[in-house]
Amino acid sequence: MTQISEAKKRKITEQIKNVAKNENIDLEKIRRRVASGKIVIPFNPIHSPKSLGIGKGLRVKVNANIGTSREHCDVKEEIEKAKVSMEAGTHAVMDLSTGGDLDKIRTSLIKTVDIPFGTVPIYQTGIEAIEKHGAIVDMTEDEMFNMFEHQAKQGVDFAVVHVGVTKVSVERLQRQKRLIPMVSRGGSFHMAWILHNKQENPLYKNFDYLLEIASKYDVTLSLGDGMRSGAVYDSNDRAKFQELLIIGELVDRAREKGVQAMVEGPGHMPLNDIQSNIQVMKTVTNEAPYFVLGPLVTDVAPGYDHFVGGIGGAVAGLAGADFLCYLTPAEHLALPDKDDVREGVVAARIAAHAADLARGIDRDMDFNFSKAREDLNWEEMFDLCIDSKKAREYREKRLPLEDTSACSMCGKLCAIEMVKKYLRKR
Amino acid sequence: MTQISEAKKRKITEQIKNVAKNENIDLEKIRRRVASGKIVIPFNPIHSPKSLGIGKGLRVKVNANIGTSREHCDVKEEIEKAKVSMEAGTHAVMDLSTGGDLDKIRTSLIKTVDIPFGTVPIYQTGIEAIEKHGAIVDMTEDEMFNMFEHQAKQGVDFAVVHVGVTKVSVERLQRQKRLIPMVSRGGSFHMAWILHNKQENPLYKNFDYLLEIASKYDVTLSLGDGMRSGAVYDSNDRAKFQELLIIGELVDRAREKGVQAMVEGPGHMPLNDIQSNIQVMKTVTNEAPYFVLGPLVTDVAPGYDHFVGGIGGAVAGLAGADFLCYLTPAEHLALPDKDDVREGVVAARIAAHAADLARGIDRDMDFNFSKAREDLNWEEMFDLCIDSKKAREYREKRLPLEDTSACSMCGKLCAIEMVKKYLRKR
Repeated sequence: MTQISEAKKRKITEQIKNVAKNENIDLEKIRRRVASGKIVIPFNPIHSPKSLGIGKGLRVKVNANIGTSREHCDVKEEIEKAKVSMEAGTHAVMDLSTGGDLDKIRTSLIKTVDIPFGTVPIYQTGIEAIEKHGAIVDMTEDEMFNMFEHQAKQGVDFAVVHVGVTKVSVERLQRQKRLIPMVSRGGSFHMAWILHNKQENPLYKNFDYLLEIASKYDVTLSLGDGMRSGAVYDSNDRAKFQELLIIGELVDRAREKGVQAMVEGPGHMPLNDIQSNIQVMKTVTNEAPYFVLGPLVTDVAPGYDHFVGGIGGAVAGLAGADFLCYLTPAEHLALPDKDDVREGVVAARIAAHAADLARGIDRDMDFNFSKAREDLNWEEMFDLCIDSKKAREYREKRLPLEDTSACSMCGKLCAIEMVKKYLRKR
Repeated sequence: MTQISEAKKRKITEQIKNVAKNENIDLEKIRRRVASGKIVIPFNPIHSPKSLGIGKGLRVKVNANIGTSREHCDVKEEIEKAKVSMEAGTHAVMDLSTGGDLDKIRTSLIKTVDIPFGTVPIYQTGIEAIEKHGAIVDMTEDEMFNMFEHQAKQGVDFAVVHVGVTKVSVERLQRQKRLIPMVSRGGSFHMAWILHNKQENPLYKNFDYLLEIASKYDVTLSLGDGMRSGAVYDSNDRAKFQELLIIGELVDRAREKGVQAMVEGPGHMPLNDIQSNIQVMKTVTNEAPYFVLGPLVTDVAPGYDHFVGGIGGAVAGLAGADFLCYLTPAEHLALPDKDDVREGVVAARIAAHAADLARGIDRDMDFNFSKAREDLNWEEMFDLCIDSKKAREYREKRLPLEDTSACSMCGKLCAIEMVKKYLRKR
């Protein structure tokens, strides 16, 4: 019993009901789109997170990646980061931990997080393989599937599987002569495994078995973007599209078997490539929900990648992307701390909202805010803005001295005050 | 003798030569575009700034606004802000001071700034009118023109004139029923003046006289955006387009009289309105250089408006905008300090570069950077990135402990390292 299998039977789950209400969209429309796989609701009953719809016609959503690394591992800090990300308004959290007691970290985080929770099971598989067998490439098929089920049992709502990294797509990658061949961590585990063992990716070869497990726990598959471009130079190339074509077929199979599936996307990509990437993705997957990382519209701004990804994310959202994976200012440089997490979530939320506005969604938010601005009603503005705390701090840093309700940039020369006096004569 | 009048006579000025070299574009192409007014080179010989081309086919440029307010006035701080903005890579600086000894501040700043320097002469006119006559609306015609010439003599390279705020456009504004009628400070001075005095805007009525003065000093006119939308709700409305049509005619007249002119643009505007705004602007001005403020793609994110404007700026640049006025995190809240200025310039530069990349310009910057990334050559990356200082700080905050050239996010699980070992076998 999964959201999609119920929806196909014309049953309205509690989660479908909640999504329809939250998004203010007709219930039957949501049900049809869940049934056809154009909307996913990541919801593993073991975890039972808040209902979140991702996909066609819905608000663009935001995901925050947290997790330890082999370099820096502190469970308390990760719990704090999870809390900060939720306070800042993320819609989902992924645990990408690779250091410390991974099961302990994951179970602690699942308890903390009341929104959809995602993982990349191949990380733990690979890390345990280093310990057990000496190398990532010595992971066994069984270990891959068992780990997926192990995490599903822990309550994971959505899980990344790099099923498009196959013999065919790796071969295409080798011929592609990329500037940076691969930047996906999970993708690189599979690529190395395929080349080292001269065998097909087990998750691809036995995809039906993966679907069986996913269906049992209603884990939403996030079909991983192993071939995503790590440099704008490599954007929208044959290796990436090869993976996407393979993934498109697997989306069909997931839907047939009653498994929810979304698709992951780039990556580094110049602004002018974004629309075509999304249009092609939507065509070859028959409008699967699209979960994008960025896109990063330039390579050269480490320290500002939350912003670089926000530019790409806003444009992607307008073009049809459904779910934005945040980036933090620490991206490409270090493991983010909780301040980075906060900055990352706010930046991605701004990008998502900019895309929503452009699609005619939530325009009342800006209308109400600007009405308060016209009235120079600061308390109301702080209440309605995306980050009250920061806005308030800025205003208080330099409060106007003159007797004015304006700000210290214009003081008594405020245009809004001039309008009141001369245009409106009130 | 102005850049455009020389170019029309088929003369190649030193500045045209420099622009052609900087942009790596054929000299004759630059000369033709300066002659037709599609490129401006703000260059008042009294100031003699570095040569900067703005317009068709060139890199997107960035402007930083600095200046005192009536609320906060410290000349040394403004000089520091000017320096910080130049170090961060701004291409032009505008002094919007409204507090303190405006002439002293301006002459100090002009000495500090070796790139094009802009002002809004009506600010000083209005402020002096308060002192002399008691109110902004008591400015005289002579005072307006004299102030423009006064600042031209001080060496101002480009000056904003709100010549599109006329009886006709103000009437259209009154009928428009905007959420926020007007947010342009200079625009509101003229709007109030027109309504109070029941007379036409002198700068519009006697535009030929303005052209005479501008031509004498080769001050580039920046035809001000008095009717810009201050809320996404008011974007692309009749009041704005009315002003633009008037401005389009004045651009023609400026070109005829050998005066360089660019046009200012919005403002608050949802993402989906940007392209049409720019296409219409380019049509009705016969491709005048477009200087945009943002655009701000949502109203609700005070504290992050440098980012909100960067999203809009990147999309605008791709659609044809030529010159991005930065926003700082303090926008709408307070007068920016030097850290805000720095953040603002970097954000606008990222947006400008994202637009350039998408138009096929400066792709080698990203290519070279990503080559260094593939080599995990950190020093080279720091040298080639947009803000070395910040990137270095992030990496050093959490340096990897393991023996690896990767970063502390992935450590030994770095995909690039996996590629080296398995895909490239080197």
